[in-house]
Amino acid sequence: MTNIAKPYLVFLADAENPTLAKTALGVRDWARKDCAGQLRLTPSTLDIGLPDLTPSEAAARGARSLLIGVAPVGGQLPAAWQGVLLEALEAGLDIVSGLHVRLETFPALAEAAARLGRTLHNVRHSKIAFPIATGRKRTGRRALMVGTDCALGKKYTALALTQAMRAQGIDATFRATGQTGIMISGSGIAIDAVVADFIAGAAETLSPDAAPDHWDVIEGQGALFHPAYAGVTLGLLHGSQPDALVLCHDPVRTVTSFFPDYPLPTIEAAITAYLPHAQRTNPAARFVGISLNTSALDEDAARRAIENAGARTGLPAFDPLRFGIAAVVDEMLAGTLEAAFAAV
Amino acid sequence: MTNIAKPYLVFLADAENPTLAKTALGVRDWARKDCAGQLRLTPSTLDIGLPDLTPSEAAARGARSLLIGVAPVGGQLPAAWQGVLLEALEAGLDIVSGLHVRLETFPALAEAAARLGRTLHNVRHSKIAFPIATGRKRTGRRALMVGTDCALGKKYTALALTQAMRAQGIDATFRATGQTGIMISGSGIAIDAVVADFIAGAAETLSPDAAPDHWDVIEGQGALFHPAYAGVTLGLLHGSQPDALVLCHDPVRTVTSFFPDYPLPTIEAAITAYLPHAQRTNPAARFVGISLNTSALDEDAARRAIENAGARTGLPAFDPLRFGIAAVVDEMLAGTLEAAFAAV
Repeated sequence: MTNIAKPYLVFLADAENPTLAKTALGVRDWARKDCAGQLRLTPSTLDIGLPDLTPSEAAARGARSLLIGVAPVGGQLPAAWQGVLLEALEAGLDIVSGLHVRLETFPALAEAAARLGRTLHNVRHSKIAFPIATGRKRTGRRALMVGTDCALGKKYTALALTQAMRAQGIDATFRATGQTGIMISGSGIAIDAVVADFIAGAAETLSPDAAPDHWDVIEGQGALFHPAYAGVTLGLLHGSQPDALVLCHDPVRTVTSFFPDYPLPTIEAAITAYLPHAQRTNPAARFVGISLNTSALDEDAARRAIENAGARTGLPAFDPLRFGIAAVVDEMLAGTLEAAFAAV
Repeated sequence: MTNIAKPYLVFLADAENPTLAKTALGVRDWARKDCAGQLRLTPSTLDIGLPDLTPSEAAARGARSLLIGVAPVGGQLPAAWQGVLLEALEAGLDIVSGLHVRLETFPALAEAAARLGRTLHNVRHSKIAFPIATGRKRTGRRALMVGTDCALGKKYTALALTQAMRAQGIDATFRATGQTGIMISGSGIAIDAVVADFIAGAAETLSPDAAPDHWDVIEGQGALFHPAYAGVTLGLLHGSQPDALVLCHDPVRTVTSFFPDYPLPTIEAAITAYLPHAQRTNPAARFVGISLNTSALDEDAARRAIENAGARTGLPAFDPLRFGIAAVVDEMLAGTLEAAFAAV
């Protein structure tokens, strides 16, 4: 597992679109105390509300790592970033990257890091060899976030759910499956970087046997309907063996992000598609809630969207960043009690 | 792509179970002229009908490579094999491996290969970086083999179908997605070795745009119901964008190989499960045949099983190694003609 030195200087490059800055926004929202500042390359770059600092200024304020907070499509490292990254290494910062390409494949970065004694963290890459999945049912309880698309709130839902469960005294652990989640929590497995044969095996490793009343709350990835990433989603679903599924959806999104020819399924169609696959490795799997990303709606419209989703599915619907998450926790626990009674 | 020197000395180690010797059997059946002999470590090792040769004897008869024809569960290299592999390198043979572990991670093998100028082929590992899938519909026609489990005839079905189509004058290419297929055909992508994010992208790369009447006949992998490998299967299905699907099934198998807690689906349930996923990236996808592996049945029982599968699904059913494949080719072409008329 990676051990990252904090606080962070969050690097936003020239990203203007929040969709490309998921990592930066996630770390800001869920590890705010670990963020010393932000580094933006142009005046029109997204401002995430942290102090603007150069690498030297950040180091002087105690920052330990420059965190690459934007994810270019395809995961490559733009050549224009190298100067800034070298400046950060010279200023005394490690570099934390969630990109597909490894930082050390750039000779100038590898040389500077070696010379200065800095660490290049490639959070997306795991050096652990995972086993082939066994399909054996594990002890403890698991919740998995699934979605109608990428980038619509699966990680935030899992983080908020973990927080709400802990607030109720439930023993719950957030399990990160993507680079941002790993950066926030400090551990996890970048499941989309695992060799394809081992996706489900890595998911089994991520949430091991646990006490009967312990919950792992697992960050989801991709979507079963996604033309590029569905394989990751299905392997994660099988290996996670979730007791509880939360469907994450954006009520104003009509097509798959970056894949305009691929319409999103309805929430009913998504539930119908996910459930049999989930029940293959855990026959007790069931949906316990609908998490709506209502960030594009005003409060009235958000409440209407949530009421609509709840009425259509008969499940508690909520926006984890706005209102209603307690009902989902109740639904999860009710299901657990029912299962416990059924087992008597 | 890998370029392998032939003929082969096929190494069977001490495997007694044909299920573990898929690679050896595949190369013998579909590239018989490229097999100089077999190398077995014990008298009870499976005999695949090739001359028993030592590495030196094989080299003297013109063999160029020792091909590891058995696949231990988990893909590791048993320590006991190293002596034989060193002997092969000394005798003048390259080594061809489809295991997960790379041959050069064994220092003695790496040293001997470097000293002797031999090549260590790790067919399962691709050095190519694949793109993220685009989901863009490609030109040309594609058939994909899918199954109710692993190891029940997807590769053989694809090879036989390619052969039958060519015999009818149809321009068809076998596309290998596993190590045995790659060893037989000399090219392909070991799809289960691709990084998870790129499964569908690798599948798109494997069957590029082609002439309108050209068919790629794509070897399948895993099964949508498999607790370890379903992610690979779904990514391959999405990226392949098949026009025609052939369901491969073993009528005497009741549970998933090596996963006895996982019953196999019926052929009807399998079709119902696969089709919506296939139609996500190619709305015209349809099943054109049922390929039964009847190797455990006598001829009468095999014919009954095939009739039964045909009657239940309304599709041509066949055993590619026994009888009936022509009807599937007809069904594929009929579908193509219907599609062509529908497009007018």
